[in-house]
Amino acid sequence: MRLSPQCDRKPEKREVIGISVQRPVRITDVAALAGVSPGTVSKALNNTGSLKESTRQRIKAAADQLGFVPDPDARWLAARRSYTVGLLSVDAAGRFSIPVMLGAENALAAGEMSALMATTRYDPVREAYHLKTFRARRVDGIIVTGRTTDPRPPVETDIPVVYAFAPSTSADDASVVPDDADGMTKIVKHLLDRGRHRIAHVGGLPYKHASEVRAAAVTAALADVGLGLVTPPLFGEWSEEWGRRAVDQLLEATPGRDDDLGVDAITCGSDQIARGVTDRLRELGIAVPQAIAVTGFDNWEVMALASRPPLTTIDLRLEDLGRRAAELLLDAIAGTPHHGTELTKMELIPRAST
Amino acid sequence: MRLSPQCDRKPEKREVIGISVQRPVRITDVAALAGVSPGTVSKALNNTGSLKESTRQRIKAAADQLGFVPDPDARWLAARRSYTVGLLSVDAAGRFSIPVMLGAENALAAGEMSALMATTRYDPVREAYHLKTFRARRVDGIIVTGRTTDPRPPVETDIPVVYAFAPSTSADDASVVPDDADGMTKIVKHLLDRGRHRIAHVGGLPYKHASEVRAAAVTAALADVGLGLVTPPLFGEWSEEWGRRAVDQLLEATPGRDDDLGVDAITCGSDQIARGVTDRLRELGIAVPQAIAVTGFDNWEVMALASRPPLTTIDLRLEDLGRRAAELLLDAIAGTPHHGTELTKMELIPRAST
Repeated sequence: MRLSPQCDRKPEKREVIGISVQRPVRITDVAALAGVSPGTVSKALNNTGSLKESTRQRIKAAADQLGFVPDPDARWLAARRSYTVGLLSVDAAGRFSIPVMLGAENALAAGEMSALMATTRYDPVREAYHLKTFRARRVDGIIVTGRTTDPRPPVETDIPVVYAFAPSTSADDASVVPDDADGMTKIVKHLLDRGRHRIAHVGGLPYKHASEVRAAAVTAALADVGLGLVTPPLFGEWSEEWGRRAVDQLLEATPGRDDDLGVDAITCGSDQIARGVTDRLRELGIAVPQAIAVTGFDNWEVMALASRPPLTTIDLRLEDLGRRAAELLLDAIAGTPHHGTELTKMELIPRAST
Repeated sequence: MRLSPQCDRKPEKREVIGISVQRPVRITDVAALAGVSPGTVSKALNNTGSLKESTRQRIKAAADQLGFVPDPDARWLAARRSYTVGLLSVDAAGRFSIPVMLGAENALAAGEMSALMATTRYDPVREAYHLKTFRARRVDGIIVTGRTTDPRPPVETDIPVVYAFAPSTSADDASVVPDDADGMTKIVKHLLDRGRHRIAHVGGLPYKHASEVRAAAVTAALADVGLGLVTPPLFGEWSEEWGRRAVDQLLEATPGRDDDLGVDAITCGSDQIARGVTDRLRELGIAVPQAIAVTGFDNWEVMALASRPPLTTIDLRLEDLGRRAAELLLDAIAGTPHHGTELTKMELIPRAST
């Protein structure tokens, strides 16, 4: 059996213990035993910084073995916790980032942590400024929210960070993202349960992460039961106007026979699009949901409830997402960071449009 | 000429100066000269607390006369500035409070102040908890935002507070509120300029401050030019559905003759209502704006732009309001608090509906 590096160091440890009988164990002793710098020991014992978990464990084990007791008056080892977390948002007025921040703030307050709010308005200079401020205020961690679910480059900081809604492009970072595929799969299952089989999809902006995942999920969920979309998904923009136009394109592309329309359900990439779809269908005298069922996405209530009829849709559960991001951040602050992207579940909200 | 209290104290001052030759001037000397407690001297010199400006000036003059130099190590006189402001919102997801908070955060960041975010969700226990946290974190001041412009009772704290959007019921407090009457007056002037004289008003929820001020402003602006509403203002709710119903009530209450409708413009209490109004008029085959011009209020773009035709409306300039609240708070922190309610101007956004 091959010796691990830790085992290799055991003899050194005994020497150091020998020394510790004469004088109090110093942080440099722990550093020497663990084979790291004193600063890294400080980070490991204070659960700060972004060390590898194996390194942190090795250092803690070394401190335990030496019976090292941090001097509470030692400035360089003083607890750095400010019990404050920075919430960095690209746009606080964003319809998506707000519930995320609200959920995070709520979870943090329950843990006696306060939330510092900062908005970058897509300006790298403002982002750098706010990160500097967060550092000066010794925040324990940072939650970065975004306006879309498109991945964004990581922020430049050595403070623990969790990305909420917009994931980091780095797989080393911890990100929490709404599970669009989960939501759209629930929509398709709901439509199939209601006997709809000729489904068309009207998506939002092409090439956006949310658009692509949602459209792909409709196709995948139909394929699971041996079905397909009646026509390739349409993409346009996130607007009612596009929803209205899409209906005309769709009816042209899927001609029915006699009283039988070529499509019996339309899944939409957002509530705004779905509202445009229902408006246009009403203008054409096509009954929703009798002739065609329509579904939204987002549960943006002002849209979903004002629609005639009110929209069956998917609630993104963004407050849950913010809460989860806060939990992951608290873990990272406590020394057990997460890595990779975690998806949060969505909720089907059935209403009269299906 | 009558001696002012300051002049009465001049002999005392000289005595104290005599003492100060033997030992350093103490805060108690300044307190004695100014006729206040040492705590009040501390507040005055640190620009904290809510002292009368005349008191603060008297204390500063006393400190100057005595050549008092605060001991930077003295805890009781240590600078209490944390360069942090608490933003207390009833509901961070509120469509109105968000731009207010954004404007405030922006203005504060420009002044190197950070914003702590806290939401109460209308829960007095949460409000008390957050106020306690703000105090523990020694925030320099607090901005309280609300969901409506209805006055709210003051928060219980001795930290400087400014109320934004929802004013305090106490006239001693500083509040910044959107000038609904200014906005509605601009709407009426715009309609009169376009030759409309037979105006009806569809308001939101009755007894709400915004509903009442907006409806009263239409009446007042028309009275200014010798006109009146064609029918008493209608009140219902802040919804599209109410806007649609209101059209039917209105056309019944104002019967026109032949092709001449009894009304040539409808001012609405919100964009949501106006959107319902335009939708219903289109269903009835009444052309907007040719037969009836329609105006919204709020410039909630998702409503105002999706409306057919897009709505002429009023932008509340809520970021300006938040910025102004931050300015008033910075003044209060600097020792010159404001009192009473300040109104912020609105902006007319003309679009195709007029």
